[in-house]
Amino acid sequence: MPKLFNPNLNIDALFLGPKSENAVFFKEMIDYAVSEHMHWRSGFHPEDAALVTSVDRYEHNYRETLYRTEGILNQLSAKLKNSSIPFFSPRYLGHINADTLMVSNLAYVMAMMYNPNNCSYEVSPTTTELEIESGLDLCRMFGYDPQRAWGHITSGGTVANYEGLWVARNLKTLPFAISQHPETKNLLSHKSPKQLMNMPTTEVLDLISELKEQGIFNEVRDLTCRGSGVKPEVIGKLLVPQSKHYSWVKAADIFGIGQENIIPLPVNAEYQTDVAKMREITLSLIEKGEAILAMIAMVGTTEVGAIDCIDEVITLRKECEERYGASFYIHVDAAYAGYACSLLLDEQGKFMEYDELVKKHQELGLTPENIIWPKPAVYRSFKALRHVDSITIDPHKIGFIQYSAGAICMKDKRILDLISSRAAYVFQDGSPQSDPSVNNLSNNNRNILGSSIMEGSKSGATAAALWAAHRLLPLNISGYGKVIAAGIVTANWLLNNIKSMQPIKVGKYQFETHIMPSPDFHMINFSFKEIGNNSLMNHNALNKRIYELCSYSTERAYTNDFITSSTMLGYKDYGDTPQHYAEQCGFSQSEWEKIHHIYVLRAAVMTHCLRDQEHFEEYWEQLKSIFVKKLIQLVDEQEKSLYQKSDFNISFLS
Amino acid sequence: MPKLFNPNLNIDALFLGPKSENAVFFKEMIDYAVSEHMHWRSGFHPEDAALVTSVDRYEHNYRETLYRTEGILNQLSAKLKNSSIPFFSPRYLGHINADTLMVSNLAYVMAMMYNPNNCSYEVSPTTTELEIESGLDLCRMFGYDPQRAWGHITSGGTVANYEGLWVARNLKTLPFAISQHPETKNLLSHKSPKQLMNMPTTEVLDLISELKEQGIFNEVRDLTCRGSGVKPEVIGKLLVPQSKHYSWVKAADIFGIGQENIIPLPVNAEYQTDVAKMREITLSLIEKGEAILAMIAMVGTTEVGAIDCIDEVITLRKECEERYGASFYIHVDAAYAGYACSLLLDEQGKFMEYDELVKKHQELGLTPENIIWPKPAVYRSFKALRHVDSITIDPHKIGFIQYSAGAICMKDKRILDLISSRAAYVFQDGSPQSDPSVNNLSNNNRNILGSSIMEGSKSGATAAALWAAHRLLPLNISGYGKVIAAGIVTANWLLNNIKSMQPIKVGKYQFETHIMPSPDFHMINFSFKEIGNNSLMNHNALNKRIYELCSYSTERAYTNDFITSSTMLGYKDYGDTPQHYAEQCGFSQSEWEKIHHIYVLRAAVMTHCLRDQEHFEEYWEQLKSIFVKKLIQLVDEQEKSLYQKSDFNISFLS
Repeated sequence: MPKLFNPNLNIDALFLGPKSENAVFFKEMIDYAVSEHMHWRSGFHPEDAALVTSVDRYEHNYRETLYRTEGILNQLSAKLKNSSIPFFSPRYLGHINADTLMVSNLAYVMAMMYNPNNCSYEVSPTTTELEIESGLDLCRMFGYDPQRAWGHITSGGTVANYEGLWVARNLKTLPFAISQHPETKNLLSHKSPKQLMNMPTTEVLDLISELKEQGIFNEVRDLTCRGSGVKPEVIGKLLVPQSKHYSWVKAADIFGIGQENIIPLPVNAEYQTDVAKMREITLSLIEKGEAILAMIAMVGTTEVGAIDCIDEVITLRKECEERYGASFYIHVDAAYAGYACSLLLDEQGKFMEYDELVKKHQELGLTPENIIWPKPAVYRSFKALRHVDSITIDPHKIGFIQYSAGAICMKDKRILDLISSRAAYVFQDGSPQSDPSVNNLSNNNRNILGSSIMEGSKSGATAAALWAAHRLLPLNISGYGKVIAAGIVTANWLLNNIKSMQPIKVGKYQFETHIMPSPDFHMINFSFKEIGNNSLMNHNALNKRIYELCSYSTERAYTNDFITSSTMLGYKDYGDTPQHYAEQCGFSQSEWEKIHHIYVLRAAVMTHCLRDQEHFEEYWEQLKSIFVKKLIQLVDEQEKSLYQKSDFNISFLS
Repeated sequence: MPKLFNPNLNIDALFLGPKSENAVFFKEMIDYAVSEHMHWRSGFHPEDAALVTSVDRYEHNYRETLYRTEGILNQLSAKLKNSSIPFFSPRYLGHINADTLMVSNLAYVMAMMYNPNNCSYEVSPTTTELEIESGLDLCRMFGYDPQRAWGHITSGGTVANYEGLWVARNLKTLPFAISQHPETKNLLSHKSPKQLMNMPTTEVLDLISELKEQGIFNEVRDLTCRGSGVKPEVIGKLLVPQSKHYSWVKAADIFGIGQENIIPLPVNAEYQTDVAKMREITLSLIEKGEAILAMIAMVGTTEVGAIDCIDEVITLRKECEERYGASFYIHVDAAYAGYACSLLLDEQGKFMEYDELVKKHQELGLTPENIIWPKPAVYRSFKALRHVDSITIDPHKIGFIQYSAGAICMKDKRILDLISSRAAYVFQDGSPQSDPSVNNLSNNNRNILGSSIMEGSKSGATAAALWAAHRLLPLNISGYGKVIAAGIVTANWLLNNIKSMQPIKVGKYQFETHIMPSPDFHMINFSFKEIGNNSLMNHNALNKRIYELCSYSTERAYTNDFITSSTMLGYKDYGDTPQHYAEQCGFSQSEWEKIHHIYVLRAAVMTHCLRDQEHFEEYWEQLKSIFVKKLIQLVDEQEKSLYQKSDFNISFLS
């Protein structure tokens, strides 16, 4: 367990800042990062003669090559400056992006100079250790036992989700494999076929341990789907929230499960998985004797930031085990909101009771008196994470690490035996490396990174970046909690102001703003409604055009005043849930039933820059005037188009 | 097509260098990279008030936070310096690692500051374009038609292999899906069931086009394994070279195919897939009516650098099509040697005839007179790549890019329709973005990166690094070819010197060196043999210990004189092929049959530092004395251990 400390962090000193306020420090440190490596190079066997002399460097083509290099970097810089998106600015409130931590940028550069590959310990002794340490940091945050748990970095949340499904799928077929092998089939003869289909994760993992002791595990493992291929009827159904993040649709394809074996779980009015319907669907599958491959729950949907009731998922699993002797694997996709768990942990990394937490957040100035996060239901969700089998979390989202860094945590690392593979040239398959200074646990973890993950070669620099972030920002209220709270508070202020905004008058038109109520996290969804317009299609066209005016697509993002993102909340993904919002905007039921989707502006409020209320109010005044400007532009376009009858083929005003 | 140029590159000016010879340039450029971004930030809406003032920066906790950041970077630097591996030095000849291109390191840092995510064009307008451009560079190098082909970056070769198998698997089930759908089943009624099982890739792709035109493709696609899940009996067999790179074993598990459906293809004496046996196995499968999912061929195995006869694979496919009306998908894993294709292209990017190539290499000084690369068979392999369906290539191997950057090229991008998916919040599923300045092809390619790849979020900085490398080093003899040739020449010299080395005498022991003959690329495998030792087990233990003495595992790599890697060539992976080498070392057939594996030292000779023969000879003298030193150390250890009877439990000397 790393030494705990209680830093008094200043959030502004963590980021380069919207005006590059920390430019001097950053440059000093990047020079340090690069210089340290350069000295390391030149200090390696000083007796070796320099192969490149100053005479060589004077050669015409030597200088030409350097000039060419410089020229290419000039070109690249021009391209980047021309069309990049200013995530660092509070004027950007869109995708799950904001400024990234200086310490992670610097650590990445420093480690990149050494170019470690965390696929194999042999070529990454430093950064493999850093990855293991960072993975366990995440496991601890979720309440997993670090002696049993396992966490590691993936290229992103999508691959982390894949890995969760991979272990779940292979686990599902182990009981059948055991029943098929002549030497092990008696082990499970007391189970009914229905029970075999849905054995509790822990029971299956205990069987792995038993089979390994008997020396027969490898043979049995060859009989799982890993060896024989997938049989969808045995694998069963994958229960996924109805909105189905695209990674699950891809996963069902990739893992041979089939997209038709995804069972969508409807959402409630808050866009969370509907607990009653989830129970109904699950019990009915079990009663019908269908296998359930896994239940997927979301902690922070990418569209509205909804957080499922994880405690209810755990309760349901318990009920299924007790009533039917049937269980299922649970994977939580907390790619977006996972790091927010740090807001529930005190400076010692212990989960706080709810009242203590509310008090503490205000004492430490994380939230003002009138803002409380999380709601009790969300609190219970985070607290229940320790009971789920695996969790996806993205450091490159609210971990404030640059791309790309996803991660997965698994509750019990014995599960890795189901996916482990070896290759002779990377992992010596002879006697284990004998280094008595290293304990077996650590040795074992080292090997896992090479043999029991989905990817192969991977940048060790990412591990350095993550490790450095975790060292600077402990995964509790004194570290990450503090930074994430800044975004939550700003999101709340923004929500209240948008809600109570006066209609904007442009010529003969009037526009009111609507916002979806009470998000679980810091994602807000809002839209502009022309007063008097009763057409949902017009509303959608209007907001799509506003999105375009607030994005890269109509002008350079750099010269734009405000940049956001957008989404379409439709019947296919959410049933009639978006109708509540459509009604709030004043659209009739029949309009909803005709169009069946509503277009909204969507903003993840991650910025740390507006946590001071005074700054925020100044920002808000400016934002309002930007909204006015955009609406003027839009009305102007529309009127021109009506006049010219050519430019636009959809009317978005009544 | 990018403007062609014929640079007169100086290889030493491409890398930071073993003594950081280009430190001044590198620092100047990294300062440029960072400064440009900082100016971009501060120039964004100059009217916005700075939120962080100098008074804020004077706060105690502000400075404390910066000091903490610095402290963490100090710690990280200490860790990295303590245990990193000096890939930059010619004293490192081991895994496929060497110094990396300055331009790629710098481009990465520059782009990382903007933090683009190539999952979505909206958050990566610049780097998405760079990724598409770099992918097409690779397609062009292999001879694919850039109008039809598609290439993109993956996190590594493993994921690229996965993606190749993914499209192959889904393609395999489309004919069956067509036969199942009531509206399309007549399309293939002229095919026999055997023919349906193994339709030529192009024919299936033409069907996709036809179904799309009829507006029925999506429905039929839902009937492929993507929708219904995998049925291993329909999917068929995956033919993989016997050595089975671990990524294929994992892939057969992940894609639900089952490892038991991998058919190993035996290798010949040169560790290449045995053409006659490949033919025999393939024909016999087709005759038995088995489906063949795909044939995998290697261009550069990671253990010995063997290059399969790709032209023979193409010929075999043609034979199968003509004789049986049965075809199969071909994927080439050129992760290691793919970039060497650049040695076959002239300055205009045209494939040269063999004689022209040999002449040109010598004229340009790429190779000395007595070294010719490639052999005619290898030349034919590279030239045949344009006919295969997809190719894995790793920029982070001999593309000299830092980790992690793999890539896949596909001959015909229509195949992506089989894996494509969409998610509402990333890709607007309403009417397409109307930007008349962008043509449809480019728009289409942009969307592919988000919707038709395996991964999700991905670093745009990697694309910048790759793009910059390709701009500096054209993918032909004047660019990459020149750098890669340096390693090939050095590998050849090293091979000849090791082959003709005199035995080394240490006390009463004498050691001779053996090296595997004539590699296809720049990977060499060699071992030390104690003269008089007839035990293969002792030989293996001896060389394992030498490896340990030449790696991080016995002392800090930094203080070591020479660092290499090792591998075990065994019966399981290569049949009796390694017996040739065991015999060359003087071990009897019965020894081979008893032990069935031989341990060798393995070195990818990628370094650009020893391409001058004079430098090489100095290096060689030094290397010989290092070998002597290591053997003295080893004999010393062994004698002590015989005396103490404790430290070592295996004897490795006779």
